[in-house]
Amino acid sequence: MKPEFLALDQTRVEQVLQQVLQQQIGAATSLHQAMHYSILLGGKRIRPSLVYRCGLMLGARIEDLDAPAAALEAIHCYSLIHDDLPAMDNDALRRGKPTCHIAFDEATAILAGDAIQSLAFDILSSHHFHQVPAERVLAMVKQLAKASGVLGMCAGQAIDLAHTNQDFTLDTLEQMHRLKTGALIQCAVELAWLASPASKPEDLELLRRFAASLGLAFQVQDDILDIESDTETLGKPQGSDHQANKATYPALLGLSEAKRKAEQLYQDAIAALAQLPYQGDELQALAQFLIARKN
Amino acid sequence: MKPEFLALDQTRVEQVLQQVLQQQIGAATSLHQAMHYSILLGGKRIRPSLVYRCGLMLGARIEDLDAPAAALEAIHCYSLIHDDLPAMDNDALRRGKPTCHIAFDEATAILAGDAIQSLAFDILSSHHFHQVPAERVLAMVKQLAKASGVLGMCAGQAIDLAHTNQDFTLDTLEQMHRLKTGALIQCAVELAWLASPASKPEDLELLRRFAASLGLAFQVQDDILDIESDTETLGKPQGSDHQANKATYPALLGLSEAKRKAEQLYQDAIAALAQLPYQGDELQALAQFLIARKN
Repeated sequence: MKPEFLALDQTRVEQVLQQVLQQQIGAATSLHQAMHYSILLGGKRIRPSLVYRCGLMLGARIEDLDAPAAALEAIHCYSLIHDDLPAMDNDALRRGKPTCHIAFDEATAILAGDAIQSLAFDILSSHHFHQVPAERVLAMVKQLAKASGVLGMCAGQAIDLAHTNQDFTLDTLEQMHRLKTGALIQCAVELAWLASPASKPEDLELLRRFAASLGLAFQVQDDILDIESDTETLGKPQGSDHQANKATYPALLGLSEAKRKAEQLYQDAIAALAQLPYQGDELQALAQFLIARKN
Repeated sequence: MKPEFLALDQTRVEQVLQQVLQQQIGAATSLHQAMHYSILLGGKRIRPSLVYRCGLMLGARIEDLDAPAAALEAIHCYSLIHDDLPAMDNDALRRGKPTCHIAFDEATAILAGDAIQSLAFDILSSHHFHQVPAERVLAMVKQLAKASGVLGMCAGQAIDLAHTNQDFTLDTLEQMHRLKTGALIQCAVELAWLASPASKPEDLELLRRFAASLGLAFQVQDDILDIESDTETLGKPQGSDHQANKATYPALLGLSEAKRKAEQLYQDAIAALAQLPYQGDELQALAQFLIARKN
């Protein structure tokens, strides 16, 4: 069941992103349009919701979560634009709509991705925080930069591209996902922790374990949906990973073993959450939803 | 004449960048190689030298200038990788060597550029500063993000791409350059100012005027060199801008008027510098060198 707060978080982060974009209108009109198009193309906004729900659990002010939530989503969004490019995954559809380089052109899509990455760091560093000192905001910049770069998300995409035709071992597949999607999911709880003045150092490791398991569970579920769902529900061609001969958990483990793995990872995430001295209901509901989702 | 400090600054910033890259070795080997290749491909390192010489003039510690100098050069470097891509300027040579997408492949070049942008913000936010409080480092992140994004460098490249076949007016050409190269040149003096604890608010405007004139002078000189220099000296095909039917100052103004404009901008830069209550000899020598250079 979709938790009610997810729609609230979606609306909230989209308002923040829209306001930010409004302040970025300058001489480069079509570039701005491409950024606006891609940032507001929709999506589940899972990373922002993780920031909001984790931060609120830790006692942060919601206004102090807006910038980390929006910045993280901006990084995710730029990575999708670049991943869809002809030289990368060459995808024409994203969330049922033309990808950025189809709706605009390739050069504009490259630039829009670049400018959206800059925007993420602009958002974090320009935001007026209420309860977060500059040292912690700077630590957010650092975590976000590391999670995005060659030791994080970009490395995951590079490993993905280097291993075509399923010459993946299970270890490499897991490493790829831990970097490609896991790094930003983990960054969500780190940013939430940094935005919460009362958060304790001992909480951070458990939050990271929660996020690491959740991130991987999310990815295994993605692979399962690629087989079990249909094109309309997915917003992209069903079976596209399979057709592209991409390594997936069902391909390496079989469908039923992949489902067991997703369930185990979900249980690991919940177990880490249960050890934290906070009300983890919302994070649990979010994790539950991500595993049970159909698209 | 090439100022002696330029070679020192080159060496210094390249050491900083090399050390930083050393800490970034992880699972994505070829991505790391592409980043290393492009970052250490050479170049005049003008932006870092501006940071060093401006910061030292203002009384900053040189160790506190390493991170802004390296971060700024990283942004410049990523922009060159992406500008050279087939969908953008489609250049095969840069500084006499194969461009990143030729030496590696297009996907790796896109990712290397992306990861180098992240690295720039990682460098700034991870550095241990001696005399610069977190608030000012955060302000550096903000300035760098704004100078790089849709209101800065990316906008300049977008305007450049949108105006092919010389349908530029002089105003649009100037606006394009003020964004495409001017934004980062201006950012150099802003970061230097932020790294200098004793710097005064009233200095900033004059430094910006100096940088704005210098940045444009540099670009006019670039256009002149495209006509007057030769391929070997330039490290890229002589006349390539002209051949690509790109708008240039000589094309719009004529060669001798373009030379007068470069000289006037240089004089404007020096005039702004002269109003500052500091020893501006090194910045003046740097400006002089940039105008008199042959490549």
